[in-house]
Amino acid sequence: MDPQWMDKLVIKNDAKMVFLIMDGLGGLPMDGRPGTELETAKTPNLDALARGGVCGLLDPIAPGITPGSGPAHFALFGYDPVSTNVGRGLLSAAGLDFPITERDLCMRVNFATMDAWGQITDRRAGRIDTETNERLCRKLKEGIRPAPGTELFFATEKEHRALIVLRGDNLHEEITETDPQQTGLPPISPRALVPEAEFTSGLLTDLLAQAKMVLADEPKANMLLLRGYARYHRFKSMSERFGLSPVAIASYPMYRGIARLLGMTVHTPTSSLEEEISALETTWPDYDFFFVHVKPTDSRGEDGKFDEKVKVIETVDALLPRITALHPDVLVVTGDHSTPATLAAHSWHPVPVLLAAKTCRPDRVEHFGEGDCLFGGLGRMPTSSLMTVALAHAGRLTKFGA
Amino acid sequence: MDPQWMDKLVIKNDAKMVFLIMDGLGGLPMDGRPGTELETAKTPNLDALARGGVCGLLDPIAPGITPGSGPAHFALFGYDPVSTNVGRGLLSAAGLDFPITERDLCMRVNFATMDAWGQITDRRAGRIDTETNERLCRKLKEGIRPAPGTELFFATEKEHRALIVLRGDNLHEEITETDPQQTGLPPISPRALVPEAEFTSGLLTDLLAQAKMVLADEPKANMLLLRGYARYHRFKSMSERFGLSPVAIASYPMYRGIARLLGMTVHTPTSSLEEEISALETTWPDYDFFFVHVKPTDSRGEDGKFDEKVKVIETVDALLPRITALHPDVLVVTGDHSTPATLAAHSWHPVPVLLAAKTCRPDRVEHFGEGDCLFGGLGRMPTSSLMTVALAHAGRLTKFGA
Repeated sequence: MDPQWMDKLVIKNDAKMVFLIMDGLGGLPMDGRPGTELETAKTPNLDALARGGVCGLLDPIAPGITPGSGPAHFALFGYDPVSTNVGRGLLSAAGLDFPITERDLCMRVNFATMDAWGQITDRRAGRIDTETNERLCRKLKEGIRPAPGTELFFATEKEHRALIVLRGDNLHEEITETDPQQTGLPPISPRALVPEAEFTSGLLTDLLAQAKMVLADEPKANMLLLRGYARYHRFKSMSERFGLSPVAIASYPMYRGIARLLGMTVHTPTSSLEEEISALETTWPDYDFFFVHVKPTDSRGEDGKFDEKVKVIETVDALLPRITALHPDVLVVTGDHSTPATLAAHSWHPVPVLLAAKTCRPDRVEHFGEGDCLFGGLGRMPTSSLMTVALAHAGRLTKFGA
Repeated sequence: MDPQWMDKLVIKNDAKMVFLIMDGLGGLPMDGRPGTELETAKTPNLDALARGGVCGLLDPIAPGITPGSGPAHFALFGYDPVSTNVGRGLLSAAGLDFPITERDLCMRVNFATMDAWGQITDRRAGRIDTETNERLCRKLKEGIRPAPGTELFFATEKEHRALIVLRGDNLHEEITETDPQQTGLPPISPRALVPEAEFTSGLLTDLLAQAKMVLADEPKANMLLLRGYARYHRFKSMSERFGLSPVAIASYPMYRGIARLLGMTVHTPTSSLEEEISALETTWPDYDFFFVHVKPTDSRGEDGKFDEKVKVIETVDALLPRITALHPDVLVVTGDHSTPATLAAHSWHPVPVLLAAKTCRPDRVEHFGEGDCLFGGLGRMPTSSLMTVALAHAGRLTKFGA
């Protein structure tokens, strides 16, 4: 939820809150074995926390809805995930720390391979390496002449993925994406979906024609596919809404991007979970809200690797004492969505959540797992309500009404 | 929920879904015995389904709200029951397969008995039989002269209940109902509730005056009471919203009417539960959504017959193997609302629900009953969310956001 009246209840104090987010945490049993990934993992520290705290299940968007990580994280931070849902281009731009302005249209771009007949033969250009991507972005920057009154920015994301920002006046995002979604078809033209977007679609048609010429001599990456158009959108920051001074410890661009859009300080990327916890320890005196993002739970789930996802959870459990040693006033452990290894994809199943604080009313949960969370004291609620409950346990919300 | 953004996530596949709706399924204990009707019934097949599937409780409209069958069914099919709530007249017209147009005002009519002093002595005209009703409709059709520019249609529903459709321009539905709701009082005049409805109320006043004269010589049914005014309303079909090809196997007019309003094919009425299941088997290759409506659970509940309602549930349980033998991808068993025999009426108590599919996360429910459903993995949710969850388990929803 994103209701103004709730934000008005916020008061400030010195309480510190940690949101330990294991991406894709929720799971399902696989191959006839009885438990989910979380239920299979040996997690003595999480279980102890569950016994002292309160557990439950979260619906990231709504029952039955499988979320992308973007809206699911907005919900975790207390923002309505539907009304804040923005194009991937904006998340990419924020993740790359691109200085977005109000005149910008951000686009997520894939380099692709096109044959002599104009048909896409590889939608990811053979997953070119990041260095090639950087070279191509320079080549496009040098070779393309922006239309009068506009500017173009090209930035490498990773492998075949890049960001293009078109800066100008009267730009609109209601344009068809050009990725045909399967090989053997030509790219789709960037058509205006509303009359006001005609001018923008013309600019993009010209951009693609020029890009095709500039990339004509490339063996693999000889075409661009445009997706995730997004105009600039300003969000109320977590500081404005909740009076928090937040820091994000996350290494993947999209999560860093979301954190930046919501006004979090974004810590330098780390290269392991241990380093993330070290970053938490280092930044501890300087902030009061800590978003710690664990990516491999989701990655192993997406790969269909049940046992490896179990291991990631056990690794996090082993690191947990370093977090509790900091004595956070509120420690939340949950995921943004479920990624059951057996589905090898995000899913709609509700996400287990654990909240530890001094003001928890005891429930009967003995182990942190989906089955036990069904009986937890937090019950089942939308993910976007979690921040309110966490703020309450942090003593950061005053009474509503007299 | 009926949000546009959710419908945009729909994808098509070959998955088949069955909604087995036992009308008024939810119950209460009676006469000091411990269980509800569903808990008392011996239901080995439903229990087995519950062990492999996932259970929960549904709120048809909102906690504490007792629904009519109309809005409760709209919710089951994924439509917001409050914004789609329409006058009973429209449901009656649809149920009778009346070819409604945009110029129509539909009314639910009761034949009633009025004494010489103009007071209603029987609001149902001694429950005249359906043949008498048909004769009276013909008599009204012949005897009443519609106002210039308007047409009138009279159709028998059942016993004392009929449908009148007034066709014309500038008709409005904001008119007081004329049923005084108790005997010994005169009918209420059809007064306009908004100024625009003055013209319509004049037409209805004239209609009632003429009807009174035409029926003057009838021993019982000498008056009409008008209720459930409803203008034409077009609903987005389940095919448009969910990409489904739905069929309704239901024998009662109102349920057939709702199904028709939502674009379902409506199967020929059957005369027993066995025949309903046979209809399911016969239509199996041709559709992908099957609404199977079981009425007697509600009827026995309304009659206050606890043991008979138990028996109906046991009959359905015995027929269940014929449904599971079809291997639906998603099988939902629930009710539209509760009708506890001890109350002999619809009630606000949440409705037990069971969903069976391959992608269910195990919960610990061993028996399908209200008490066990409290601990089910579906949790407690609005009935209107059920369709979203069912579509998710059918693989018919894509991800929300990036």
